[in-house]
Amino acid sequence: MTALLVLGGARSGKSRYAQARVEVYPGRLAYIATAQALDDEMAERIARHRADRGHRWTTREAPIALADAIAAAARDADAVLVDCLTLWLSNLLLAAHDIDAASAALCDAVARCRVPIVLVANEVGLGIVPDNALARSFRDAAGRLNQALAGQVDEAVFIAAGLPLWLKPAG
Amino acid sequence: MTALLVLGGARSGKSRYAQARVEVYPGRLAYIATAQALDDEMAERIARHRADRGHRWTTREAPIALADAIAAAARDADAVLVDCLTLWLSNLLLAAHDIDAASAALCDAVARCRVPIVLVANEVGLGIVPDNALARSFRDAAGRLNQALAGQVDEAVFIAAGLPLWLKPAG
Amino acid sequence: MTALLVLGGARSGKSRYAQARVEVYPGRLAYIATAQALDDEMAERIARHRADRGHRWTTREAPIALADAIAAAARDADAVLVDCLTLWLSNLLLAAHDIDAASAALCDAVARCRVPIVLVANEVGLGIVPDNALARSFRDAAGRLNQALAGQVDEAVFIAAGLPLWLKPAG
Repeated sequence: MTALLVLGGARSGKSRYAQARVEVYPGRLAYIATAQALDDEMAERIARHRADRGHRWTTREAPIALADAIAAAARDADAVLVDCLTLWLSNLLLAAHDIDAASAALCDAVARCRVPIVLVANEVGLGIVPDNALARSFRDAAGRLNQALAGQVDEAVFIAAGLPLWLKPAG
Repeated sequence: MTALLVLGGARSGKSRYAQARVEVYPGRLAYIATAQALDDEMAERIARHRADRGHRWTTREAPIALADAIAAAARDADAVLVDCLTLWLSNLLLAAHDIDAASAALCDAVARCRVPIVLVANEVGLGIVPDNALARSFRDAAGRLNQALAGQVDEAVFIAAGLPLWLKPAG
Repeated sequence: MTALLVLGGARSGKSRYAQARVEVYPGRLAYIATAQALDDEMAERIARHRADRGHRWTTREAPIALADAIAAAARDADAVLVDCLTLWLSNLLLAAHDIDAASAALCDAVARCRVPIVLVANEVGLGIVPDNALARSFRDAAGRLNQALAGQVDEAVFIAAGLPLWLKPAG
């Protein structure tokens, strides 16, 4: 099935764009959240977003086990949204997981997904080189993941100010 | 009348591109500067830029009261350039103004502007997440403002190395 | 001959894209590296990349004297790759060279280059304004250099996630 990568900066409107692209599909929609409710403020924000998405959506949390969550969501839903890969990568790095293995498993899950899937990711490599080594590693890992997915999906867009530029037009 | 949003990074050539787009209009041109001459070096730089723009241009300073400045400029000039929105946002934040109210007033002023208007803004969300909370708030506010304006204008471009990519082509 | 500027963020896939664009040309290919092997790890990485490029390529190091290296490479090779301009700029700044003179000499060398040339550069101006003054100067210099080259080349692309957006389509 068709896969779309939505790439953009912080507050670029990429999540809203991605959600709108999933909502064109009829039926049940799965939202896979990689964010974790680590405090009350975050929990409240997540609950509010969930309520905002409306009755067609069901939400799954997958801070780490993203490939499994995609496989499970594809069994239950007619289209899947993953928001966002960069936060997932950050969760993996903090938990000292093997990034290469996890990225390969993710690419495989996207390839096997039998319903349309939209994946949101941040572009973080367009500023000055960060001072700290962890930020540089993260930036490198995020860039490599974006490249791997962009090579695999059917369509890829770069979002700025809520509007898309097509890196890879739909086939 | 037609409104154009010019988005880009630092030293991307966005101001020069925006100025060239305004200069295609005949008649009197209004330059609305949101920069403030806080020291001698800055004052000198502003004076030099003003001299460079040539005799068709008149300059207004609007570090805070931007919506009013647009309304006033539209009465006197045949086309208006605002440079730049991100610095204006920074001025608002430093002066503890209500960002949402000011953004709404700005969008309204752009909608009512009876002459062509070109607005320059920075994209600041494509680097690593900043360490400090104020920078993160600023980044969020800048992204939201860019989205709000991009939704409203007739044309939006993303500038890199002085060259445009069309986020929203002219109608 | 034709000149191409490849602009992108860290780990955006810009080097790989640029190399592929040079490899379409038949004959001998020159790789001009602006990176310096300042330690063993870096030396090893450079050696590995050199081996990866294959037998058609010869490598020249030009951390500072880039214009001369381009002139020399154009005499010996059928196409030239420069990777990357932003690191070269950083080398110039650290060695306190005259940036404006070096940039002008570079543009002149590109204009005189009698074989196809592809130049890789980083976009570093799309994050939050850096705290430190040196980073701000560097960002300004990088942006100005990118604009100068973009104005001169026949084709310019912005790379994200390994995929190109055309800032300036090939003529």
